[in-house]
Amino acid sequence: MKTTNKRNKNLSIRTSKTGLPPGTPVYTGKKHSEKIDIDVFTYSSTDYHRFSPDTEQLLKMVDVEKKWINITGLNDVDAIRSICDKFGIHYLYQEDILNIDQRPKVEEDDEYLFICFKSLTWVDEIKTIEEEQISLILTQDTVISFQESPGDNFDPIREKLMAPSSIIKERNIDYLFYRLMDITVDGYYDIMDNVGKYIDELEDEVIDEPVRQTLIKVQNNKKDLMILRKNIYPLRDVINKLTYNENTLIDVKTRKYFRDVLDHTTQNIENIETFREVNMSLKDIYLNTQSNEINKIMKVLTIISTIFIPLTFIAGVYGMNFENMPELQTQYGYFIVLGVMVIIGILLAYWFKRKSWI
Amino acid sequence: MKTTNKRNKNLSIRTSKTGLPPGTPVYTGKKHSEKIDIDVFTYSSTDYHRFSPDTEQLLKMVDVEKKWINITGLNDVDAIRSICDKFGIHYLYQEDILNIDQRPKVEEDDEYLFICFKSLTWVDEIKTIEEEQISLILTQDTVISFQESPGDNFDPIREKLMAPSSIIKERNIDYLFYRLMDITVDGYYDIMDNVGKYIDELEDEVIDEPVRQTLIKVQNNKKDLMILRKNIYPLRDVINKLTYNENTLIDVKTRKYFRDVLDHTTQNIENIETFREVNMSLKDIYLNTQSNEINKIMKVLTIISTIFIPLTFIAGVYGMNFENMPELQTQYGYFIVLGVMVIIGILLAYWFKRKSWI
Amino acid sequence: MKTTNKRNKNLSIRTSKTGLPPGTPVYTGKKHSEKIDIDVFTYSSTDYHRFSPDTEQLLKMVDVEKKWINITGLNDVDAIRSICDKFGIHYLYQEDILNIDQRPKVEEDDEYLFICFKSLTWVDEIKTIEEEQISLILTQDTVISFQESPGDNFDPIREKLMAPSSIIKERNIDYLFYRLMDITVDGYYDIMDNVGKYIDELEDEVIDEPVRQTLIKVQNNKKDLMILRKNIYPLRDVINKLTYNENTLIDVKTRKYFRDVLDHTTQNIENIETFREVNMSLKDIYLNTQSNEINKIMKVLTIISTIFIPLTFIAGVYGMNFENMPELQTQYGYFIVLGVMVIIGILLAYWFKRKSWI
Amino acid sequence: MKTTNKRNKNLSIRTSKTGLPPGTPVYTGKKHSEKIDIDVFTYSSTDYHRFSPDTEQLLKMVDVEKKWINITGLNDVDAIRSICDKFGIHYLYQEDILNIDQRPKVEEDDEYLFICFKSLTWVDEIKTIEEEQISLILTQDTVISFQESPGDNFDPIREKLMAPSSIIKERNIDYLFYRLMDITVDGYYDIMDNVGKYIDELEDEVIDEPVRQTLIKVQNNKKDLMILRKNIYPLRDVINKLTYNENTLIDVKTRKYFRDVLDHTTQNIENIETFREVNMSLKDIYLNTQSNEINKIMKVLTIISTIFIPLTFIAGVYGMNFENMPELQTQYGYFIVLGVMVIIGILLAYWFKRKSWI
Amino acid sequence: MKTTNKRNKNLSIRTSKTGLPPGTPVYTGKKHSEKIDIDVFTYSSTDYHRFSPDTEQLLKMVDVEKKWINITGLNDVDAIRSICDKFGIHYLYQEDILNIDQRPKVEEDDEYLFICFKSLTWVDEIKTIEEEQISLILTQDTVISFQESPGDNFDPIREKLMAPSSIIKERNIDYLFYRLMDITVDGYYDIMDNVGKYIDELEDEVIDEPVRQTLIKVQNNKKDLMILRKNIYPLRDVINKLTYNENTLIDVKTRKYFRDVLDHTTQNIENIETFREVNMSLKDIYLNTQSNEINKIMKVLTIISTIFIPLTFIAGVYGMNFENMPELQTQYGYFIVLGVMVIIGILLAYWFKRKSWI
Repeated sequence: MKTTNKRNKNLSIRTSKTGLPPGTPVYTGKKHSEKIDIDVFTYSSTDYHRFSPDTEQLLKMVDVEKKWINITGLNDVDAIRSICDKFGIHYLYQEDILNIDQRPKVEEDDEYLFICFKSLTWVDEIKTIEEEQISLILTQDTVISFQESPGDNFDPIREKLMAPSSIIKERNIDYLFYRLMDITVDGYYDIMDNVGKYIDELEDEVIDEPVRQTLIKVQNNKKDLMILRKNIYPLRDVINKLTYNENTLIDVKTRKYFRDVLDHTTQNIENIETFREVNMSLKDIYLNTQSNEINKIMKVLTIISTIFIPLTFIAGVYGMNFENMPELQTQYGYFIVLGVMVIIGILLAYWFKRKSWI
Repeated sequence: MKTTNKRNKNLSIRTSKTGLPPGTPVYTGKKHSEKIDIDVFTYSSTDYHRFSPDTEQLLKMVDVEKKWINITGLNDVDAIRSICDKFGIHYLYQEDILNIDQRPKVEEDDEYLFICFKSLTWVDEIKTIEEEQISLILTQDTVISFQESPGDNFDPIREKLMAPSSIIKERNIDYLFYRLMDITVDGYYDIMDNVGKYIDELEDEVIDEPVRQTLIKVQNNKKDLMILRKNIYPLRDVINKLTYNENTLIDVKTRKYFRDVLDHTTQNIENIETFREVNMSLKDIYLNTQSNEINKIMKVLTIISTIFIPLTFIAGVYGMNFENMPELQTQYGYFIVLGVMVIIGILLAYWFKRKSWI
Repeated sequence: MKTTNKRNKNLSIRTSKTGLPPGTPVYTGKKHSEKIDIDVFTYSSTDYHRFSPDTEQLLKMVDVEKKWINITGLNDVDAIRSICDKFGIHYLYQEDILNIDQRPKVEEDDEYLFICFKSLTWVDEIKTIEEEQISLILTQDTVISFQESPGDNFDPIREKLMAPSSIIKERNIDYLFYRLMDITVDGYYDIMDNVGKYIDELEDEVIDEPVRQTLIKVQNNKKDLMILRKNIYPLRDVINKLTYNENTLIDVKTRKYFRDVLDHTTQNIENIETFREVNMSLKDIYLNTQSNEINKIMKVLTIISTIFIPLTFIAGVYGMNFENMPELQTQYGYFIVLGVMVIIGILLAYWFKRKSWI
Repeated sequence: MKTTNKRNKNLSIRTSKTGLPPGTPVYTGKKHSEKIDIDVFTYSSTDYHRFSPDTEQLLKMVDVEKKWINITGLNDVDAIRSICDKFGIHYLYQEDILNIDQRPKVEEDDEYLFICFKSLTWVDEIKTIEEEQISLILTQDTVISFQESPGDNFDPIREKLMAPSSIIKERNIDYLFYRLMDITVDGYYDIMDNVGKYIDELEDEVIDEPVRQTLIKVQNNKKDLMILRKNIYPLRDVINKLTYNENTLIDVKTRKYFRDVLDHTTQNIENIETFREVNMSLKDIYLNTQSNEINKIMKVLTIISTIFIPLTFIAGVYGMNFENMPELQTQYGYFIVLGVMVIIGILLAYWFKRKSWI
Repeated sequence: MKTTNKRNKNLSIRTSKTGLPPGTPVYTGKKHSEKIDIDVFTYSSTDYHRFSPDTEQLLKMVDVEKKWINITGLNDVDAIRSICDKFGIHYLYQEDILNIDQRPKVEEDDEYLFICFKSLTWVDEIKTIEEEQISLILTQDTVISFQESPGDNFDPIREKLMAPSSIIKERNIDYLFYRLMDITVDGYYDIMDNVGKYIDELEDEVIDEPVRQTLIKVQNNKKDLMILRKNIYPLRDVINKLTYNENTLIDVKTRKYFRDVLDHTTQNIENIETFREVNMSLKDIYLNTQSNEINKIMKVLTIISTIFIPLTFIAGVYGMNFENMPELQTQYGYFIVLGVMVIIGILLAYWFKRKSWI
């Protein structure tokens, strides 16, 4: 009988692109839609402007002060390339933007700063984590953000930008860059919270009524934790670099805020390690439950056998057909034997009680 | 049947505050009371003054030499914020004071030094550790301490301050700061002591009469040890920083004392590692006990079966209804068969004895 | 009964050559063919020339600008030695070229740069990884590559060289060197992909219908992962050295590309670690499945025994030959006893149902 | 039934002294005796003088060249304090001398060098390690040693001092300091030797006739190894500091000898790791033995059941009371059935033989 | 019943010499012979001279250019000491030469370089590794080698020295020193090869027909691997020091060769780690085999019981002695019951088949 199990986590890596020259940007994710959505915010401390140009318009756009270009969808490789070219992004980083299995990394150039990392979402129905790659580019006066599909954590920031006055609009563009990172990393706390709750649930299940399915859930959760780890560990190095490197794009004043993000990342890494340990011990408890189960089954079997096998033997003795068996002719032999059987049964039951098997 | 277990340790992380701008101080703990208690000590080497102003009074207070402001309760976020503002504490640190899931950290600014860490208490009734976040701020002449709820380890220091003469009153404010840290870290020894005793108890239980509940206790204790580790490991770095960094707020003479605190922290970390190992091996012993149990049950079953199944077979043979079974007509056949059965039983029992199953 | 198992991974190390002086190049691989194939590309930004000289011709070849000498087959040790001597390669590196169990390494000399590493291929029929050693030598104007047997990943590069115009031909020789490394490391993604899929298959097998053979497959896969690790871990250091060392043979502009290769290698290392963990947990699931199996078998045995042993006892009682057994003479005694037996059977079945054993 | 086990290792930490100001020396060990013993050696290259002053006399003692003050017993806290004060020892180190749960450490001051570590003794009767804290203070011309109870490893050094000529007397005081450390660390080899032998014994026991008590011994031994590790690991850092730090109290010539002690410590650390691994694998072997045991028990049960259950069934068949059972009337039916039973038994026994169960 | 096992690996450490002053050279190995053998090679690029002086003659020997003194046997401590004194070797290193449990180490002095490490031999009869300590001393014009017993890996070097012309004779004495180290480290490959083959054998045994003895072999092999690790890990540091330290005794040109030895040592360390992992997993497979065995035994038991217990019950029913049992009087009742029994048996067998238990 096949066990149905949610095997949503597979381990295959990426769309194979061996043989293509490096710097050949190829999108490695699923095809969500055929075109990309562009959303541009230009703002100053008092004012803002929002519009959604198509690629053509964006390419022709005159450079204004402080703007955030948010690009959703990575299918139209040519569009992505021409936008990147406009801002002078190196071919290798264009490849990184499109290859969604990139590990978090930061690259610093004279003119711009490139960073890519994951935005994580907890999908409660299937109790698993979904990842989406976010790439951010920071130039002197522009932040460009790339994401695979619509729907993100950035709405509160959009609201802040549209509010009459906000700290984001007052500060330089590097502060916006920080806020976009911060809000994504803050989202990890939700993940931690949900994973923590789910592990608590699994623990209850494992202690109260574990079935084989539980083990598979624990196994899948373990894979989720490995994905988390793979995405958050390198992020620490990335943010560390942002915090301590000498780089004129990020102001010293903003740098202090990155130390805060670094702190949160470190805390999340510790949480992951804790989760991994608890998850591991869930497996141990599960296995113990099974051996406990065998224990109980064995006890039932042994109790039944130990009581009835001797009694059956006695019955067998008086079922023998010897001609000369004096007990058989006695008046109360049958009842005495029945009585002896009952006594033996009671004694054995008492013995099991004392061994606390019953 | 549900197993009742003390599942006091849950793994959820904190009150979700994703989306709020950083530096928006939000209290993430349980609501203990609606207002905060302020307790101020001003002292010099010969004199001291103690009073409990409300927030208004505190904010208006004229700056005097050497004072300790002890604030209990973190619910009144506005009050906390205005106090912090009065002393020029950065928004990010205000957030840290109120977010009680902060990992231990130290931040140095030109004007002040901010540190937060945990005060730990052993709750013997439920054999677990409770944690409370302590934040300390050291300025040129003031120590401010924040704690969640009343009741702390600081009473001996209050007594010292109220004593006619004491080393604390003679020294500078940084010495008071050191003493507050030292007394909290010293409290960890009590925790270690209690956890050590509890593990000893668990070991006795696991060896003498382990039940499934024991395993759950071991599992919960493991989580406690993980919490300990999470709180004490980063503290080492914190104190290390205090000991070796160049910082004018802490005098070189006081610095030597921090080396002592560092030493104690290191020792506690080693204790935790030892506890973790022993706790882990408790699980192994428990599992072994179970397999031991199965062993014993199997032996009982095998002894009973091995003795009676052959005897029952013999009885069965002479219960057959063949017409020509010469033994049945003999005078002593029955008694001979009974005798043979007894002898077989004794031989088997002797065999079990030699195999040391009985 | 012998279990047939694919034990394709053996752990013996290399053709023993203890006692030979160091720098005595001895080929340690299998003998593929008696002679070596030489393939030379000379090229400039606009032109290219390809020819296959024999060893003699190669040795006499006049030095031209930018050439790639690709040597296939390592059996003719003398030919390899004379070619290496022509280009001034140290005896120790000649030894490394021929010793195919070399771990990846890079050696820098004034005149040339020597690197050796593995090209990996997934052999799907026997679900395992094959390794072939690639050695590359970079001089001012030449790349020499050594490989054991025909068939490699380099075809796309050959095509690029033969194309009318390509970036490789425009750049310096160090760029070709980079591309040869890059294409080999890119090939590792295929391996990861295949190993990932295979582990997914194994997981399905382990969950759905594990047999002993499955465990052996998991064990063999584990060895494959160890081979992967042995080949890729040191490669990171090698590429790291290429990226950050001061070396005039590799241009600063090309260096940036190596950072990309480094990134891919790091990602592969993380993949391997993930695979190793999943592989490990497969074993746990397998073992659990077995204990699950025992559980089920025990249940069947216990159900049968628990139902029939008491019933057989009752039958035994009424099979006794006492003269005075009043039930035996009653009209419906037999039917009542049969009824009682049926009721006991039903009650026990209901009890098993409630314990969810059936 | 309670299992009697040697649970000599408890994990409680130390006499709680929370709340006392730091630098309040409190003795945390067991009370051995009420007073301390002082033993003073003054010596030059040719001469020596030995006497046992009481505390008063010691405090009044005029400073002479090269002396070793050996203090036994730490109960008289006041005496210890006044002696330490006389030599200008900092309050924090006085605390360390008296707190016998100190981890090994070295502290360097301008005037003196303070070191504390453990002297270890193997108690063969209870197969465990006893630890005693040794504190050494080195000043320009004096070594002071503190120990808890009489009996130590220092006798060979006392003999050397009393010998007419010896290298110790010729060298400076730092050489005596080195010799006292060296002889203690050399004592660790005895421990290693005894622990090694004990693990060999345990291995024999685990392989030949393991009982539950064996597992508890392995568990206790594991705790001993953890204690060893806790005492020897930090000692490496301590000696490392002594070897490489710039310190005028220890001469360059003597420093070379400390490198030797460092070497021995490193070797001991490696031994401990080896022991820990072997000890761990003893547990595995023990558990395997148990599963082996279950295996054997199961075989006995299965052999008996498999042979007799079918035979009993046959006997049961011919015990049925059908009127028309032709076999029953035949002349040799009974003997034929008996013969068939014997043949079945032999066949099954042969089958078990082939499966090598017998 | 005692299990006979090859317990050739004991864990005791060394001849106890606590209490002796450091620098008291004591030989800690087995007594092989009472005297030492000295073998001296003096050579120049064109010439060589070989002779075997006794200790007296050696001590009186006039210093000539380039010589190798090979000393076999360490029992005659006085002879060793006087030879060492002649060449100005420090007491501590004399102790190291004689203490054969030394971990590999290198010590550099102004006048000479001291190194000690192990020569390893695989003893195929008892499938284990034997170690012999080799100490080498390099001075400006002399190499002295110490070994415990006759028989070594150095014969190829002796042959080279006796050949009319060889690279060794042309180069300086440091090259001979290198060759002696290289040939010993090269011998480790043989060990790796043999251990690898042995693990392959063990794997076959563990998969095909594991017995308890197999587990003990795996355990012993694990200890061998620990010995290997203990000897080879520190050797890496030793050779690393030789490769990178500034030392005039070893020429820059020779230094390059040490990098090659370093490489081989690193590769051997990786091999050991691989072996350790495989060896560990052998234990898992063994344990799995046992649980597999239990599985099979349980199946046999369950099949037999499940088939015959119900049948025996039916026979029991018709063996009851009720007067009114209508089936008993029917003509074909007996045969019908037999038929029903056969059908039940067949159905159960079919059920087991479908569960693939048969």
